Amino acid sequence: MEQGSALILACSAIGAGLAMIAGIGPGIGQGFAAGKGAEAVGRQPGAQSDIVRTMLMGCAVAETTGIYGLFIAIMLIFANPLISRYLRIIGQ
Amino acid sequence: MEQGSALILACSAIGAGLAMIAGIGPGIGQGFAAGKGAEAVGRQPGAQSDIVRTMLMGCAVAETTGIYGLFIAIMLIFANPLISRYLRIIGQ
Amino acid sequence: MEQGSALILACSAIGAGLAMIAGIGPGIGQGFAAGKGAEAVGRQPGAQSDIVRTMLMGCAVAETTGIYGLFIAIMLIFANPLISRYLRIIGQ
Amino acid sequence: MEQGSALILACSAIGAGLAMIAGIGPGIGQGFAAGKGAEAVGRQPGAQSDIVRTMLMGCAVAETTGIYGLFIAIMLIFANPLISRYLRIIGQ
Amino acid sequence: MEQGSALILACSAIGAGLAMIAGIGPGIGQGFAAGKGAEAVGRQPGAQSDIVRTMLMGCAVAETTGIYGLFIAIMLIFANPLISRYLRIIGQ
Amino acid sequence: MEQGSALILACSAIGAGLAMIAGIGPGIGQGFAAGKGAEAVGRQPGAQSDIVRTMLMGCAVAETTGIYGLFIAIMLIFANPLISRYLRIIGQ
Amino acid sequence: MEQGSALILACSAIGAGLAMIAGIGPGIGQGFAAGKGAEAVGRQPGAQSDIVRTMLMGCAVAETTGIYGLFIAIMLIFANPLISRYLRIIGQ
Amino acid sequence: MEQGSALILACSAIGAGLAMIAGIGPGIGQGFAAGKGAEAVGRQPGAQSDIVRTMLMGCAVAETTGIYGLFIAIMLIFANPLISRYLRIIGQ
Amino acid sequence: MEQGSALILACSAIGAGLAMIAGIGPGIGQGFAAGKGAEAVGRQPGAQSDIVRTMLMGCAVAETTGIYGLFIAIMLIFANPLISRYLRIIGQ
Amino acid sequence: MEQGSALILACSAIGAGLAMIAGIGPGIGQGFAAGKGAEAVGRQPGAQSDIVRTMLMGCAVAETTGIYGLFIAIMLIFANPLISRYLRIIGQ
Amino acid sequence: MEQGSALILACSAIGAGLAMIAGIGPGIGQGFAAGKGAEAVGRQPGAQSDIVRTMLMGCAVAETTGIYGLFIAIMLIFANPLISRYLRIIGQ
Amino acid sequence: MEQGSALILACSAIGAGLAMIAGIGPGIGQGFAAGKGAEAVGRQPGAQSDIVRTMLMGCAVAETTGIYGLFIAIMLIFANPLISRYLRIIGQ
Amino acid sequence: MEQGSALILACSAIGAGLAMIAGIGPGIGQGFAAGKGAEAVGRQPGAQSDIVRTMLMGCAVAETTGIYGLFIAIMLIFANPLISRYLRIIGQ
Amino acid sequence: MEQGSALILACSAIGAGLAMIAGIGPGIGQGFAAGKGAEAVGRQPGAQSDIVRTMLMGCAVAETTGIYGLFIAIMLIFANPLISRYLRIIGQ
Repeated sequence: MEQGSALILACSAIGAGLAMIAGIGPGIGQGFAAGKGAEAVGRQPGAQSDIVRTMLMGCAVAETTGIYGLFIAIMLIFANPLISRYLRIIGQ
Repeated sequence: MEQGSALILACSAIGAGLAMIAGIGPGIGQGFAAGKGAEAVGRQPGAQSDIVRTMLMGCAVAETTGIYGLFIAIMLIFANPLISRYLRIIGQ
Repeated sequence: MEQGSALILACSAIGAGLAMIAGIGPGIGQGFAAGKGAEAVGRQPGAQSDIVRTMLMGCAVAETTGIYGLFIAIMLIFANPLISRYLRIIGQ
Repeated sequence: MEQGSALILACSAIGAGLAMIAGIGPGIGQGFAAGKGAEAVGRQPGAQSDIVRTMLMGCAVAETTGIYGLFIAIMLIFANPLISRYLRIIGQ
Repeated sequence: MEQGSALILACSAIGAGLAMIAGIGPGIGQGFAAGKGAEAVGRQPGAQSDIVRTMLMGCAVAETTGIYGLFIAIMLIFANPLISRYLRIIGQ
Repeated sequence: MEQGSALILACSAIGAGLAMIAGIGPGIGQGFAAGKGAEAVGRQPGAQSDIVRTMLMGCAVAETTGIYGLFIAIMLIFANPLISRYLRIIGQ
Repeated sequence: MEQGSALILACSAIGAGLAMIAGIGPGIGQGFAAGKGAEAVGRQPGAQSDIVRTMLMGCAVAETTGIYGLFIAIMLIFANPLISRYLRIIGQ
Repeated sequence: MEQGSALILACSAIGAGLAMIAGIGPGIGQGFAAGKGAEAVGRQPGAQSDIVRTMLMGCAVAETTGIYGLFIAIMLIFANPLISRYLRIIGQ
Repeated sequence: MEQGSALILACSAIGAGLAMIAGIGPGIGQGFAAGKGAEAVGRQPGAQSDIVRTMLMGCAVAETTGIYGLFIAIMLIFANPLISRYLRIIGQ
Repeated sequence: MEQGSALILACSAIGAGLAMIAGIGPGIGQGFAAGKGAEAVGRQPGAQSDIVRTMLMGCAVAETTGIYGLFIAIMLIFANPLISRYLRIIGQ
Repeated sequence: MEQGSALILACSAIGAGLAMIAGIGPGIGQGFAAGKGAEAVGRQPGAQSDIVRTMLMGCAVAETTGIYGLFIAIMLIFANPLISRYLRIIGQ
Repeated sequence: MEQGSALILACSAIGAGLAMIAGIGPGIGQGFAAGKGAEAVGRQPGAQSDIVRTMLMGCAVAETTGIYGLFIAIMLIFANPLISRYLRIIGQ
Repeated sequence: MEQGSALILACSAIGAGLAMIAGIGPGIGQGFAAGKGAEAVGRQPGAQSDIVRTMLMGCAVAETTGIYGLFIAIMLIFANPLISRYLRIIGQ
Repeated sequence: MEQGSALILACSAIGAGLAMIAGIGPGIGQGFAAGKGAEAVGRQPGAQSDIVRTMLMGCAVAETTGIYGLFIAIMLIFANPLISRYLRIIGQ
């Protein structure tokens, strides 16, 4: 039982690290949005609130996949239903 | 039985981490959309609601593959039909 | 039998994770489409419905490969005909 | 026999996952087409049906390699002629 | 004999998956062609049939390498001359 | 127990390193935003405060995925609920 | 002899899969050519036959490396001079 | 105990090295910002202080993910709570 | 002797597959040339023969590295001087 | 003790090498800045000192992540607190 | 002796395959040159001989690294001084 | 002792090779700077000394990360404090 | 002695193959130079000798890293001071 | 002693190959510089000597990281202080 638990928990740590790599995407995308937003504000300072609202709405959507990764990593680290399952299986 | 269960559950953790890497795609894509949307609003502030609606519709579609990855990861972590199958097979 | 089943099911979890990586493609592509669509609406607000319809038609097609990946992953996790086959082979 | 069958079926699951990675290509390509199509409709709303037809024809062709990958993955998971062959070889 | 057959057939499944990855190329390329074609039709709706014919001819050529990959994968999965060879060698 | 703990903690160190790789994304994205912001200020020095505020708002959002990675890495290194779980399981 | 033959044939399957990956190149390149060709026809419909002939000549050359890969894969799968050699060496 | 400690500390060295790879992102991004800033100053020498302040603010934000990586690497190398944990677990 | 021969021949199959990957380069390059050539013909139909001759001369040179790869792969598969050497060494 | 020390020190050498790879980022970024700076000076020779100062300030910030990598590598090679820790643990 | 010879010759086959991958570079570069050359001829048909000579001179230089790779691969496959050395060492 | 020393020194050779890969960054960046500098001199030959000085200052900064890599590699190969440490530990 | 010699010589073959991969860089770079040179000659046929001389000077410098790789590969294959060293060490 | 020496020398060959990969960077960069230089000469033939001098100065700097890689590779192959160290350690 000890070996099995250790293997599952060790692989969960690796899996959580892999899941965070997804953060590369939103990081590049939202930075692009921030740059384009700053450029647009520089051209039309009067439309700043509109531009920022649009930019943030888009970024909020782009944020989601990063949050998904965070959610899976947190589940793997804190709750880890996999190890719970394992313990139920082997009758503990 | 213990070893088999541990192997399946450990590989499920790795698989869930791999599935989240798909989030790189929507993150970059939606960030591009947010930047282009902010740029368009900066040029035509009057068409803001139309632009934002278009942008969000496109982003909603782009979001799907990220959600697919999340769905598969959640299934692997929480429900994990693979281990259920395994237990039925070995008669537990 | 136990070891064989465990190997197949563990590899199915890895395979499902690999299949979801395909989601990077539609995510980037549809995000590009969303950005271009928002830009086009910003230039021609009057043609919004036409632009959005075109964009969504294209995105629907681009979505397919993501759905293919999801389908294969679901099959591997939920139905897993591979393990059914294995059980028939070894006479169970 | 059991070990051999398990190895073939486990590698089939990995192979099916690898085959789905091909979906990155059509996903990016068709999304590009959708974006260019929406842009073109925005410039010439009158030519919408022509543009969409052209775009969809091109996307239909681009779809094919994704379908090829799906076909191979389905064959590996559902029919799996490899394991059938193996069983004939070892006389079962 | 069993072990050898299993190794060949398992590697054939991996090889078939690798061969399908070639589909990334035609997918991106044909999608580019579809986008450029839609753009060209948007500029010259009168030349639509000419543009589409040119686009499809080019795509037909680009399709070939995807079909090559499919052909090799099908051969590996369905016909698999490698295993036939192996059986002749070991006298079966 | 010793071996299992060591495996989990060693994999946590690797996982923390993998999670930090996500920092490539925000680094590139925010640098792009900084460059575009500086360019915009150079064109419209009078709108500097608006541009900088927009840029920083976008960067704040882009920062999040980097912080997610940091959070997971810190959890793995300092709190490490995985090893706590392991110890509870084996009754210590 | 059995083990050696199996190793050679299994590696031939992997090698054939690797050789097909070369198809990514012609796929992208010919798709680029198709897009540029469609664009050129859209600008000069009168020169269609000349443009298409030029495009196809270039694509025919680009096709060659894909065909080389196919040739090597077919040789490895169907003829496989490597295993023939092996059999001659060990006197069969 | 010795083996376990060695494994954890060795993996910490690898993990610290992986964490530093995140520095590729800020390096590219800030260099882009520096180039764009120098270009903007060349166009509007009078706005130099504004441009530089904007550029440095953006760079300061982009720097964070590099510092996160450095922080994790330093923690792994100098403090290494993982090994402290391990020693408490095994009762030393 | 059998084992050594099998190892050399198996690695030759892998090496031949790796050598074909070089075909990605000429495939992309010649496709670019074909697209540029078609574009140039579309602009100057009168100079078609000159353009095509130039394009084909350049492509002929670009083809060479693909042919080098094919040559090495053919040598490894058909002639395989490595195994001939091996046999002379061990006195057969 | 000898084996454990050797493992930690060997992995430190690998980790130091990995940490230096971060230097790719500042190298590309600062070179971009140098190119843009030279271009800007070529356009406005009178603003040279301002341009160079801006460029160098940006480069100084971009340099930091390279220095972080160097710091971690030096720590791993020269000070190596990991091995010091190890020796304290095993009581030497 | 047999095992050592087999290992060297097998690794030579892998090394020859790796060396051919260098062909990706000249393939892309020369194809770019061919495309630019065709474009230039299309603009200035009168300068064709000059353009082609320039293009071919540049391609001849670019070819060299492909030839280097071919040379090393041929040496490894046909002459293989490594195995000659080995035989002299072990006194054969 | 022999085995441990050999492992550390062998990994130092690999680590030194990895550290040199960082040279890709400055190589691309400085080449970009050289190209931009030559372009700028071609436009403003009178400002040559200013352009060159700016370019070389930027390149000097970009060089640093390459030198860092060289420094770490030299330390690993020539001084190698890791092995010195190891010898002190084991009392030699 | 035999095993050690074989390991060194086998790794030399792999190392020579890796060193040739550096040829990707000069191949792409020189091809870019050839294309730009042909374009420049097409614009200014009168300056052909100057353009070609400049192009070739730049290519000669770019060639160097390819030659370095060739030199190291040749040294590893033909002279191989590593094996000479090994033989002196073990007293042969 | 023999085994340790062989391991160090074999890893030195791999490390030398890895170090040469750095040559990709200067190859691409200097080729870019050569192309830009040829373009600039084509526009301003009168400034040829200035352009070439600027280009070569930049390339000389870009060359350095390639030379660093060559230096490390030569040290590993010819001098190899690692093996000298090893021999001193084990008292030979």
